[in-house]
Amino acid sequence: MVDCIAIVSGGMDSVTLLHYLVKTQKRSPAVLTFLYGQKHAREVQFAQHNADLLGCQPHQIIDLSPFKSIFDASALVSDHIAIPQMAAVQGDPQPATYVPNRNMIFLSLAAAYAETLGVADVFYGAQRHDMYGYWDTTAEFLERVNSVFALNRKTPVRIAAPFVDYSKADILRTGLTLGVDYSTTWSCYRGQDAACGECPTCAERLAAFKEVGIEDPLPYVRRST
Amino acid sequence: MVDCIAIVSGGMDSVTLLHYLVKTQKRSPAVLTFLYGQKHAREVQFAQHNADLLGCQPHQIIDLSPFKSIFDASALVSDHIAIPQMAAVQGDPQPATYVPNRNMIFLSLAAAYAETLGVADVFYGAQRHDMYGYWDTTAEFLERVNSVFALNRKTPVRIAAPFVDYSKADILRTGLTLGVDYSTTWSCYRGQDAACGECPTCAERLAAFKEVGIEDPLPYVRRST
Repeated sequence: MVDCIAIVSGGMDSVTLLHYLVKTQKRSPAVLTFLYGQKHAREVQFAQHNADLLGCQPHQIIDLSPFKSIFDASALVSDHIAIPQMAAVQGDPQPATYVPNRNMIFLSLAAAYAETLGVADVFYGAQRHDMYGYWDTTAEFLERVNSVFALNRKTPVRIAAPFVDYSKADILRTGLTLGVDYSTTWSCYRGQDAACGECPTCAERLAAFKEVGIEDPLPYVRRST
Repeated sequence: MVDCIAIVSGGMDSVTLLHYLVKTQKRSPAVLTFLYGQKHAREVQFAQHNADLLGCQPHQIIDLSPFKSIFDASALVSDHIAIPQMAAVQGDPQPATYVPNRNMIFLSLAAAYAETLGVADVFYGAQRHDMYGYWDTTAEFLERVNSVFALNRKTPVRIAAPFVDYSKADILRTGLTLGVDYSTTWSCYRGQDAACGECPTCAERLAAFKEVGIEDPLPYVRRST
């Protein structure tokens, strides 16, 4: 019996979240995954793999990629904007890798699905590290979004981000104790067969593995750190 | 040169809003229309007609109907829930005609599109009468949504509902002075060739025409008021 919704991209944060919800919190999430024209759409197969592995049903994939033009200001989507390297985004409060209002869209669709399934909790994998560049991963964002949904008169939905105070290394440590296989997660924004090792999310992922002291099992073109 | 976005369903409120923005406010809106599995999808042709008439480009139609199962708690979408008559919804703070979190989804997608187009203003046609049954048409909802978008660090978007204090009759009066042809708007939730005259939105529409003292030019199966 489904008792919550988990938004899972197939990246290491959200896949760890799914394992945490099922194994630690003993929840039974329906899984929601989004396509929005991202160059790294290959991440979705890893969301599917982990949802299947954990027996999470239903797994709803919402494909917004036919309308990817509304996200065309982002390097993650636009054919005209290259994925930047890590150095190019540092210190930028809203770098080219930001996708216009993406998280609010995801949370809004998840809240509708929660209402329809009759569950109150939606979980997503926002973590501390992302706050530097993404206003829509902060605790304040979460609080204000919840203040909107609190107005619902019959079926209020609550968004929770259990890892909002975790670093990426904290998430990795959590996942390792839960037996997460990180070769079944995907991060690289470039979305090629091997991770590039240079884009912001590769750099952060490699730094987390280095901090924890183990090797990332994914294939890389080069390992920047 | 587009300077704002208008969310237009093809109903009388949003069509009047579009005429008001173009003719009174001298704005140049891009138009955004949504399909979400609504039984009255025929309204979209009227959004298209009025956008064309006013020369509003681009007109982006976002089709969420492949994922209509997430809205399946609503009579407007579900094959298992009949459209109620007006009497059945009166006094209900969230009647069967409520669509789970629909307006937040629309506003979120509109805000993304605004960011990508580089405009700050999104307009939608919420009006006073709807507040009885729909938490997501209230001034408080609008205020809280704007408090979310205010966190955006580079491209904050502001949602405005110029008719939020108008009754449906006020909107009709406004539209008549602007030359809106109400035979090119659609309201009936049942979405048949003729409006049913009995569903909540037909009843409200007919009451507004009655209050203003003119006849609704749409064909009706019966006119309930």
